[in-house]
Amino acid sequence: MKKYTLAEIAEFLQAELRGDAICVVNGIASLDKAKQNQISFCAKIPGFASDAGKYLSITKAAAVILSSKDAERYSGNALLVADPYLSYAKLTNLFIEESKSKPGIHETAVVGQNCDIHSSVAIAANCCVGNNVTIGEHSVITANCVIGDDVKIGNDCHLYPNVTIYHGVQIGNRVIIHSGAVLGADGFGMANDNGEWRKIYQLGAVRVGDDVEIGANTCIDRGALEDTVIGDGVKLDNQIQVGHNVKIGAHTIIAGCVAVAGSTSIGKYCMIGGGTSFNGHINIVDRTIITGASVVGRSITDPGVYSSAVTVQPHRKWMKTVSRLLQLNDMAGKLYKSKGK
Amino acid sequence: MKKYTLAEIAEFLQAELRGDAICVVNGIASLDKAKQNQISFCAKIPGFASDAGKYLSITKAAAVILSSKDAERYSGNALLVADPYLSYAKLTNLFIEESKSKPGIHETAVVGQNCDIHSSVAIAANCCVGNNVTIGEHSVITANCVIGDDVKIGNDCHLYPNVTIYHGVQIGNRVIIHSGAVLGADGFGMANDNGEWRKIYQLGAVRVGDDVEIGANTCIDRGALEDTVIGDGVKLDNQIQVGHNVKIGAHTIIAGCVAVAGSTSIGKYCMIGGGTSFNGHINIVDRTIITGASVVGRSITDPGVYSSAVTVQPHRKWMKTVSRLLQLNDMAGKLYKSKGK
Amino acid sequence: MKKYTLAEIAEFLQAELRGDAICVVNGIASLDKAKQNQISFCAKIPGFASDAGKYLSITKAAAVILSSKDAERYSGNALLVADPYLSYAKLTNLFIEESKSKPGIHETAVVGQNCDIHSSVAIAANCCVGNNVTIGEHSVITANCVIGDDVKIGNDCHLYPNVTIYHGVQIGNRVIIHSGAVLGADGFGMANDNGEWRKIYQLGAVRVGDDVEIGANTCIDRGALEDTVIGDGVKLDNQIQVGHNVKIGAHTIIAGCVAVAGSTSIGKYCMIGGGTSFNGHINIVDRTIITGASVVGRSITDPGVYSSAVTVQPHRKWMKTVSRLLQLNDMAGKLYKSKGK
Repeated sequence: MKKYTLAEIAEFLQAELRGDAICVVNGIASLDKAKQNQISFCAKIPGFASDAGKYLSITKAAAVILSSKDAERYSGNALLVADPYLSYAKLTNLFIEESKSKPGIHETAVVGQNCDIHSSVAIAANCCVGNNVTIGEHSVITANCVIGDDVKIGNDCHLYPNVTIYHGVQIGNRVIIHSGAVLGADGFGMANDNGEWRKIYQLGAVRVGDDVEIGANTCIDRGALEDTVIGDGVKLDNQIQVGHNVKIGAHTIIAGCVAVAGSTSIGKYCMIGGGTSFNGHINIVDRTIITGASVVGRSITDPGVYSSAVTVQPHRKWMKTVSRLLQLNDMAGKLYKSKGK
Repeated sequence: MKKYTLAEIAEFLQAELRGDAICVVNGIASLDKAKQNQISFCAKIPGFASDAGKYLSITKAAAVILSSKDAERYSGNALLVADPYLSYAKLTNLFIEESKSKPGIHETAVVGQNCDIHSSVAIAANCCVGNNVTIGEHSVITANCVIGDDVKIGNDCHLYPNVTIYHGVQIGNRVIIHSGAVLGADGFGMANDNGEWRKIYQLGAVRVGDDVEIGANTCIDRGALEDTVIGDGVKLDNQIQVGHNVKIGAHTIIAGCVAVAGSTSIGKYCMIGGGTSFNGHINIVDRTIITGASVVGRSITDPGVYSSAVTVQPHRKWMKTVSRLLQLNDMAGKLYKSKGK
Repeated sequence: MKKYTLAEIAEFLQAELRGDAICVVNGIASLDKAKQNQISFCAKIPGFASDAGKYLSITKAAAVILSSKDAERYSGNALLVADPYLSYAKLTNLFIEESKSKPGIHETAVVGQNCDIHSSVAIAANCCVGNNVTIGEHSVITANCVIGDDVKIGNDCHLYPNVTIYHGVQIGNRVIIHSGAVLGADGFGMANDNGEWRKIYQLGAVRVGDDVEIGANTCIDRGALEDTVIGDGVKLDNQIQVGHNVKIGAHTIIAGCVAVAGSTSIGKYCMIGGGTSFNGHINIVDRTIITGASVVGRSITDPGVYSSAVTVQPHRKWMKTVSRLLQLNDMAGKLYKSKGK
C-alpha cells in the first residue's frame, strides 16, 4: 500500500496546500466513503449531476482536493486546484498497485524472424509474435497475446492478455489495449454472386495513433483497400465494433458497445454515448456529441448534441403508445386535413 | 452415451413414477423430437407461449416429466413433479457429456510465486497465473486462461478457455466463466484536459459472489476507487458490458448484449432482456423486469415490467411513421390548442 | 508486393481486355485514390449511393474494371465484365499478402488423444486441441486457439488466433473464423427455483455448414437439447451473439453486433443490418431484409424490407418529440373522439 504526505501530493499536483503538510494518506476515496487515512476530491463528474458538495461537511477524508470556491466551505486539510476532477485523474498515477513487467522475452513465448524488439520490451508467457515485427522501447506485451507478421508497435505501449493483432497493423506510442481486443480482423466485405456471397479479401490494415486506449473485446477491422485509421488520443471503451475503413478523429471518446459501420468517418473531439450505432459511409463533423443508445443513420454536418433514444416506460403504457405510434400517419392525415378546412 | 432407468430418474428428481420403472432412456429431447429411448418434459418455457401440451398426444418419448394436471391426459410412462421445467433443468445434470478435467497443473502452464492453489485444482495447458493467486478446491482453469496477480478464486469454479482475469479480482464459489470473458479490465474513466483525455487509473477491482455464471465475451470492468460488485446467484449471458462500479444484486438475470454504464446499481431478483442499455449513475429497484432491446435512461423506483422497444414494420410504412413522429410536437400543438378553444 | 499484367488479370477474371495487355499493376485502389501502377473498378457498392462514375474521368489508375456501359465513357485501359464489384472481389485473391502457414503441429501446441488430424493441417504455437478431434485437409489453426474434445473441423478451414471451440462442435469445409470468436459456449438456459436460478446444462452442440465466415468476438451458443445450426454460405460479422437452438439459413448475411435470442429461426438469403436485435422463439421467412439497428420482436412471414430505427435528431428537439410521444395515447383519444362526433 502506497503512502504519501500531503506535501508530496501537493507538489505532484502543483496544488496549493492548506493544512497539515506531513499528514500521510494511503489511498483515494469518494467523499462519502473516505476513511481517515484517505484523500478525496470534490468535483462534478462530467455528464452527471453531482452531490459531491453536500458530502464536504460530513467527509472523514484526511484531505480534500477542491476548487478555491468549494474551499471556502471546508475547514479540513485542502489541496486547492483549478480542476479537481483532472487533479484526481493525475493523482491516480501515484496509487497504481499493478506490478511492473520485467524486460525480456519469456521462455514460453514464440517470436518469429527479422523482428526488431527493443531490449526494454517485456513479452510475457505464451505470447506468439510473427515475423518482421517491430516493438518500441518499454512496451509490454502481457501473457497469451498474438501479434501477426509485419506489425509495428511503438514505445510505452501496454497490451493486456489475450489481445490479437493481425498482420500489418501499425500502433503508435503509449497505446493501451485491453484483453480480448482484436485489431485487424477482416472487414466485412462480400460481393453477391447469384445469391451467394464471395469474400472480398481485405488488403488494407489498421493504423492506430499515439495515446490511444482500446477497451476489452473491442474490434477494429482492417480496411478493404486503404487502412482503417484511429487518430491520436482516441479513447475507445469495451465491446466497440469499428468497421473497415472507418476513420476516427483525434481525441474523440467513444463509450462501450458502440458499432461503427464501414467507411464512416467520425470527426475530432467527438463524444459518443454507449450503445450507439452508426450507419456506414457517413461523415460526422468534429465536436459532435451523441447521447447513449442512439442510431446515427445520416451524416451530421453541424456540431451539437444529438439523440434518438426513448427511455423505458411501464410496459402496458408503452404498448399503448406503440400501437398509437403505428397509427400516427393516419392521425396526422386527420389532423392536418381538418385543420386545413 | 449415458443411460438410466426411469426408477433411477424418478429417485433423482424425487418424482412420482407412473409406468415402467425399468424402462431405460439415454437422452432428453423435446416432446415433438423425442425418440423412443429418450425422456421428455411438458412445460411452458418462461416468457414464451408454449404448445408443449398439444405434443403430448403424439410424442414418441419413452417417458414424460409433467405436472399431475397434465398427467390426466397422458397415458404413457410419466414422472409427476410440481415444476416440470425445473425438473428438466435438474435432469440435465445426468446427461452431461463434457469430460472432467484431472487435477494438477499442466507442464505448459506458467504459475507465479506465493500462490495458494489447492491440490484438487486443474490448471490446463498454456494458462498463465500471476503471483499471490488463491484457487480453491476442485476449481478448473481450462486452456489458455490468464489470471493476474492477487486474484482469489473460490471452490468448484470453472473457467472455460481464453478467459482473462485482471489483478486483484475476487471470485466466489461455484462460479462459471465462459470463454473470452474479461474481468477487471480498466473502467472507462477519463478527465478532460483542454480537449484531450487523461486516464484515471482504476484502483478498485471486481468482486463476484457465489453461484454466478458469466457468459462468453462478457466484460466486467474494475472499479475506479471502490469495487464493481456482482451479487450471489447472478446469471450473465454473453457479450454483456458491465461498467466500473456497477452493482448487480443477488439472483438477477441478464440476457445477452446488455450494456450497463458505470456506477449504475441494479437490484436483486431483476430480469433484464437482451440488448438493453442502461445509463450510468442510476438505480434500478429490486424485482424490476426490463423487456429486450430497451433503453433505461433513468432510475426505476417501482418494481414492474418496463419497455421501450418498437418492433420492425415494413420499411416504407416505418419511414412514413418516422416522418410523422418528427412532426409530433407540431401535431400536439395544433391538437391541444384547438381543444383548448 | 505482387505484380500482374493486365493480360494475366483479364484471364483470371475472364474479362474482355481493352488496351495495354502488358501493362503491370501491383495493387488495387478505389478510383479516386489509385496510383499509376494500380488497378481500380467502377461499381456501385450494394446498399449505398455511389459516385464512382464521376471519378472515371479523373482516375490515375493504370486500368479500370467496369461494365460495357461505363466503358463507353472511359478511354483508358479497361477490363470489361458483367459485374465489376464481383470481379473486384475475385481480384482481391491475387493481392493477399498474408503469409501461408506451413503444415505441421508446432512444438508448443498440445494435442489430445485419438485425434485424426490430416498431415496437411497447420496447428500453430500454443494451441490446445482436445481428444477425438478431427481436422481435415489444409485447414489452418493459428496461434493460441483452443479446440475442445470431439470437435470436427472440415477441409480448408482457417481459424485466426485466440478462437475457442467448445467440445462437440462440428464445422464444415472452407470455414473462416476470426479471433476471439467462441463457438459452443453454453446457451443461456436457467430454470427458476423459488427466486434463484438453476442451470440447465446444454446438451446440444453447434453445427456450422460449408463456406461460412464468422467474425471476431462473435459467439454462437450450443443448443439446449438439439444443436444450434448455421447454414452453408452464412456470413457473420463481428460481435454477433447467436443464442442456443437458433437456426440461420443458407447464404444469409448478418452485419456486426446483431443479437439473435434463443430458438429463433432466420431463413435463407436474408440480409440483416448491424446492431439489430431478434427476440427468441420467432421465425423469419427466407429473403427478409432488416435494416440496421432494428428490433425484431415478432415472426416475419412475408419477405420484404423491415425497419424500426429512428435516426438522431438535435437533442432538444428530440426531447420535445419524446415528451409528445408519451402523450400520444391521449392525443389519439382526443383526435378520434372529436372526429367521431
